Amino acid sequence: MALHETESEVARAMLYAVQGGKGLRAFLVIESALLFGIARTHAAPAAAAIEALHSYSLVHDDLPCMDDDDLRRGKPTVHRQWDETIAVLAGDGLQALAFELVLQTVCPAERRIHLARSLADAAGVRGMVGGQMRDIAAESSDRALSLAEITALQAGKTGALISWAASAGACMAGQDQGALRHYGDRLGTAFQIADDVLDVEGDVQAVGKAVGKDAGRGKATFVSHLGVDGAKRRASDLVAEACDALSVYGEKAETLRQAARFVISRRN
Amino acid sequence: MALHETESEVARAMLYAVQGGKGLRAFLVIESALLFGIARTHAAPAAAAIEALHSYSLVHDDLPCMDDDDLRRGKPTVHRQWDETIAVLAGDGLQALAFELVLQTVCPAERRIHLARSLADAAGVRGMVGGQMRDIAAESSDRALSLAEITALQAGKTGALISWAASAGACMAGQDQGALRHYGDRLGTAFQIADDVLDVEGDVQAVGKAVGKDAGRGKATFVSHLGVDGAKRRASDLVAEACDALSVYGEKAETLRQAARFVISRRN
Repeated sequence: MALHETESEVARAMLYAVQGGKGLRAFLVIESALLFGIARTHAAPAAAAIEALHSYSLVHDDLPCMDDDDLRRGKPTVHRQWDETIAVLAGDGLQALAFELVLQTVCPAERRIHLARSLADAAGVRGMVGGQMRDIAAESSDRALSLAEITALQAGKTGALISWAASAGACMAGQDQGALRHYGDRLGTAFQIADDVLDVEGDVQAVGKAVGKDAGRGKATFVSHLGVDGAKRRASDLVAEACDALSVYGEKAETLRQAARFVISRRN
Repeated sequence: MALHETESEVARAMLYAVQGGKGLRAFLVIESALLFGIARTHAAPAAAAIEALHSYSLVHDDLPCMDDDDLRRGKPTVHRQWDETIAVLAGDGLQALAFELVLQTVCPAERRIHLARSLADAAGVRGMVGGQMRDIAAESSDRALSLAEITALQAGKTGALISWAASAGACMAGQDQGALRHYGDRLGTAFQIADDVLDVEGDVQAVGKAVGKDAGRGKATFVSHLGVDGAKRRASDLVAEACDALSVYGEKAETLRQAARFVISRRN
């Protein structure tokens, strides 16, 4: 490849990585913004930012030295489609892009700073990176995790970004984030339980990534602790709690409630 | 290792990675802030941010799939001291930390946003990540880079962060960044030329990382194009230009001029 094309090769890998997702986190940002009368166009940079950040985490999580996955979103992972070098750089570039985007959110400057700082916190060692580390450490440990430990780990690994997305609208509006944080926390755990169930019950074609991996690795999950039916009940209870948390917003929050119900009925 | 220790293991690797550097970029942030009467304590978060960001880039650049280096800052690289998993996560965590820190810089909110956005731009695919990509692509190419191509590549790979650091004070003060950008651009290139010279002339003990790598790889550098003496003359000319660019600040900028002279006389 010609030298001037190499930068755009990383850019192509970045675009490839963000495409084909469900867009759940972007959806949560936009819908939580609409709750406060914030225009979609004003919230859109924050929605794009969370998708860029989430996609970077998937690209790096899929690396051979991490989860070593070949399939993501129904297509080859970035290091399989290109190579590890491009995958590391595309992930790094997506994280930088996420902060560039979130700082373009249209709201007063102090709130924009708060939004970006809370995103950095959710992404960092106390949030997503910390959760990912614990997940990998658990796999190489000879002791199975307790349910409380799995819940805590997942609160970092997937919960932090989902919770940030769900409360982003309140942050942009300068309003109390409590109810949306509560909703986001419950939704995040329900989302992860649904993921564990899909790993057992799902079809690789529909799910778009490898399935049956957890059992194959002897990994402790919500399903290994609660069984498939118990896990589904737990997820259903969490979704009910998530919906209840939004009662303060009345009918306006119905789309967010539907999203919560979708999360545990999804097939991918 | 016990499970509750694993998060702090990444935190330990992050701390390990930021220690032992020259702190040139932090120094540039503080000194450029002092030019405008901004207190060190107000600029300190931005100085810490650029060191976190620079350190993340070193940790990832040293990975086996990138430059595959064993020694950095006189000690084993993170993936040698720990493993690749920790190195990827520590780098990722350091990038998030950099944005958390820069957003704590003490200056008016709009300027803080500008500072953070320009940092994201310097870090991303149009800056550092893009330059790193071109560098790696050049090594696997069978055509040697021209001097102009090396200059352009290095402007991204090392120049973008140095230039950001040098102009950070003007950004915090809401003043014109032109002179400091000019200084930073020249300084960045001079810094890279000095690095190429150290790779030829330096001692691994003093330099703190492997030397003789470029020639061993047949890599085109400033030295391979200009020769050692020619490269030193070029660096010296650039430092003179960098110093001249600060004439508008008079005697106040003397420490920054000394820093520029240090960059080409350094032994590590």
